[in-house]
Amino acid sequence: MTGIEASEPHQIELFEHGFVRLDDAMASDLSVVNSARVSFAVRKEAMGDKDAGLIRFLMRERHGSPFEHNSFRFHIRAPIFVAREWFRHRFSSFNEESGRYHQLEGDFYIPEPEAVRSQVGKPGSYSFEPVDPALADDTIATFERVYKELYAEYQALMDKGVAKELARALLPFGVFTQFYWTVNARSLMNFLSLRNAVAAQYEIRAYADAVETFFSQKMPVTHRSFVDSGRTPP
Amino acid sequence: MTGIEASEPHQIELFEHGFVRLDDAMASDLSVVNSARVSFAVRKEAMGDKDAGLIRFLMRERHGSPFEHNSFRFHIRAPIFVAREWFRHRFSSFNEESGRYHQLEGDFYIPEPEAVRSQVGKPGSYSFEPVDPALADDTIATFERVYKELYAEYQALMDKGVAKELARALLPFGVFTQFYWTVNARSLMNFLSLRNAVAAQYEIRAYADAVETFFSQKMPVTHRSFVDSGRTPP
Amino acid sequence: MTGIEASEPHQIELFEHGFVRLDDAMASDLSVVNSARVSFAVRKEAMGDKDAGLIRFLMRERHGSPFEHNSFRFHIRAPIFVAREWFRHRFSSFNEESGRYHQLEGDFYIPEPEAVRSQVGKPGSYSFEPVDPALADDTIATFERVYKELYAEYQALMDKGVAKELARALLPFGVFTQFYWTVNARSLMNFLSLRNAVAAQYEIRAYADAVETFFSQKMPVTHRSFVDSGRTPP
Amino acid sequence: MTGIEASEPHQIELFEHGFVRLDDAMASDLSVVNSARVSFAVRKEAMGDKDAGLIRFLMRERHGSPFEHNSFRFHIRAPIFVAREWFRHRFSSFNEESGRYHQLEGDFYIPEPEAVRSQVGKPGSYSFEPVDPALADDTIATFERVYKELYAEYQALMDKGVAKELARALLPFGVFTQFYWTVNARSLMNFLSLRNAVAAQYEIRAYADAVETFFSQKMPVTHRSFVDSGRTPP
Repeated sequence: MTGIEASEPHQIELFEHGFVRLDDAMASDLSVVNSARVSFAVRKEAMGDKDAGLIRFLMRERHGSPFEHNSFRFHIRAPIFVAREWFRHRFSSFNEESGRYHQLEGDFYIPEPEAVRSQVGKPGSYSFEPVDPALADDTIATFERVYKELYAEYQALMDKGVAKELARALLPFGVFTQFYWTVNARSLMNFLSLRNAVAAQYEIRAYADAVETFFSQKMPVTHRSFVDSGRTPP
Repeated sequence: MTGIEASEPHQIELFEHGFVRLDDAMASDLSVVNSARVSFAVRKEAMGDKDAGLIRFLMRERHGSPFEHNSFRFHIRAPIFVAREWFRHRFSSFNEESGRYHQLEGDFYIPEPEAVRSQVGKPGSYSFEPVDPALADDTIATFERVYKELYAEYQALMDKGVAKELARALLPFGVFTQFYWTVNARSLMNFLSLRNAVAAQYEIRAYADAVETFFSQKMPVTHRSFVDSGRTPP
Repeated sequence: MTGIEASEPHQIELFEHGFVRLDDAMASDLSVVNSARVSFAVRKEAMGDKDAGLIRFLMRERHGSPFEHNSFRFHIRAPIFVAREWFRHRFSSFNEESGRYHQLEGDFYIPEPEAVRSQVGKPGSYSFEPVDPALADDTIATFERVYKELYAEYQALMDKGVAKELARALLPFGVFTQFYWTVNARSLMNFLSLRNAVAAQYEIRAYADAVETFFSQKMPVTHRSFVDSGRTPP
Repeated sequence: MTGIEASEPHQIELFEHGFVRLDDAMASDLSVVNSARVSFAVRKEAMGDKDAGLIRFLMRERHGSPFEHNSFRFHIRAPIFVAREWFRHRFSSFNEESGRYHQLEGDFYIPEPEAVRSQVGKPGSYSFEPVDPALADDTIATFERVYKELYAEYQALMDKGVAKELARALLPFGVFTQFYWTVNARSLMNFLSLRNAVAAQYEIRAYADAVETFFSQKMPVTHRSFVDSGRTPP
């Protein structure tokens, strides 16, 4: 028993070793309507004519609590520099692969050539521009070489008997981790407003965009209202 | 689409006007196992032999986070003195009937004769004893009389044009309200440890016991481990 | 040792029996600046020229986390219908007077004549208008009479041996309670945006306005930025 | 104005480049007592004879909310593998040095020889044993060499124009970061129960022990009760 139909896509692949998989969901636009209408002691069995308007009203007026009565459980594989930003979202639940008790696999994030970029501008108004192809190739080669060397160093220390939890100090932020993330739509929209946004780092934005795809499938009216309100979370 | 089978009971009635109704759930023992085993990058499709032992281990060692990757949405109708205690549980979501914009119905909590009790003992070690039948009857009659008078006063003020939000100042804590409550199993077990307990007030304990029934149906291994660990939440 | 200077006012009285008292605070605009500037590994001992601009930038761009590194502890006495709305603010800490183990004092909220009002308009756009003086007087007289009768009923039940926790079911929402509330500036601004606002109920708005006075004294630049940003919490 | 006396030590150094500095505090045992005694509408100006007993009672019975009405603001510098565990504690506030907009300094964690260890045992009951001196020396030499190479690679990529946010993917978990952490005593005791414990990783345990020193200075009765209750957080 799950809230996901078998015919729906469950998983979006990212960055060779990564994915966002919707493991389960208890989410519907109707849950927003009913938790708002309980103010007037009203309950509905299905979305009606005025209910999309109600959801737009709640979004615009930032009445956030009716958006909390639902839940999405995601299973995610991402580089640790992406996970580090993700775990700052406190109003949700996380469990993650452990580098203390478990040897991390040697999967690392390598940027596509077009994702190798320069930072331009100044604090508060940075932007990012692609680098020339030679530098992109050089950067990718550096990443590949360094990752390979580091994983060998990590492996060698453990082979000599050093504890995993200590040897991992040499692993880079580009290594892949995996985790479960359970979150309601209110907290999810806050995540999307920050992470699927121009100011977000390219890599986490790609993940946030995948998350948004699943959100829009499960709660289409809520998602449309979020977009139409300028992506300001309620 | 819902996480509740049609054949399952959805609603437990309490105290004449009250109920606990499980509106939806995304909850399974397997979600606990998978979010714990992600530490070792392992995922399972079904509960296996060692998984009940793993849940017991997590409960006993108070590794709480794997119990958060699930969600229960309850629809509850209860007296306000019960709701007041309920709303203290911050790691969950609430939307409630409003007395500002909506006239509350004239349903009030009347204790059964055996629920009319005296408080004995001293701070830190109170207990409650039944009163004699005459006092029980007298108390019930007082409740009925006072509630009826108050609701008439409330109605009369509104009939004269006084705002609902002000007139409600005369309504007593015994009036029924209704609300949605969405919560994960970790926070739910904390609620149960405090509210389905000897020290809890009789009325909220009856509600908490109904909540526990639904919890035990959806996550039987987790519930059993909670009980076996002395009802200490992880 | 406390974060409050002896020369500062500590307490604002409201509604005859109520108050907002700042019990202690660890709050300064500098704490916002330093927790933002730690992004660049910079720490300052005092506010500098560009720091007010930084706070305005953080507020406008809704970078909320630097506003969390401070704390206000308030001691509040208010009617329960005010406290009920207050306790919905989950990202803060509460401890409240108990009606289970302690007999509540017979202090109740009586509106001033100009606070007796009618509700006009419809859902989503209500407003409140004063009633005519005769109805105001009549309402006040009703409140006084009903409160007196109810407190006598409450007292009588306890005199006969009924437990306080049960007898309180007859007490009205207008009775005063008291509580401690500890909150950081981010959560506080969210509270102010909702409760010191046109849409808020008159009585909680008066309390929120008192809270805002203390906030503006402790964090004047932050408060000014909040007001200038249209009271949108970061 | 601060809650810290000039004569008190503010900062504890750890691991060559790290520290725990108490930036400010609003914390006292009296705040626990008053927020508990508000249940009975009682307020005290100073700790009295029975108040240590009250705190012990609250701790033992796990009445946690009175321990929330205080606040500690720490400034911490630690390796990222330590920070990663720290940031899992959601009921507190964080702001951290950014590797997106700011070049991280080349400070890295090198274990003392006696901190180079092997992991023995199996899941659920691991322990750690020192390695022989030759392996300890070899490990330290590896750490020093790898860190130096990695920082040079990171620097070289930025010199060629690659964005900091991308180049940092090569930095290892052993690099130092710094952050502010603001937390109340209830959440702090939960942190200490997990991180200043036998099962915790050696490095975060050293930090947690420093945090505990400041906690014990500010709230000595609360700290003593925590220790006496077997370090179970309330």
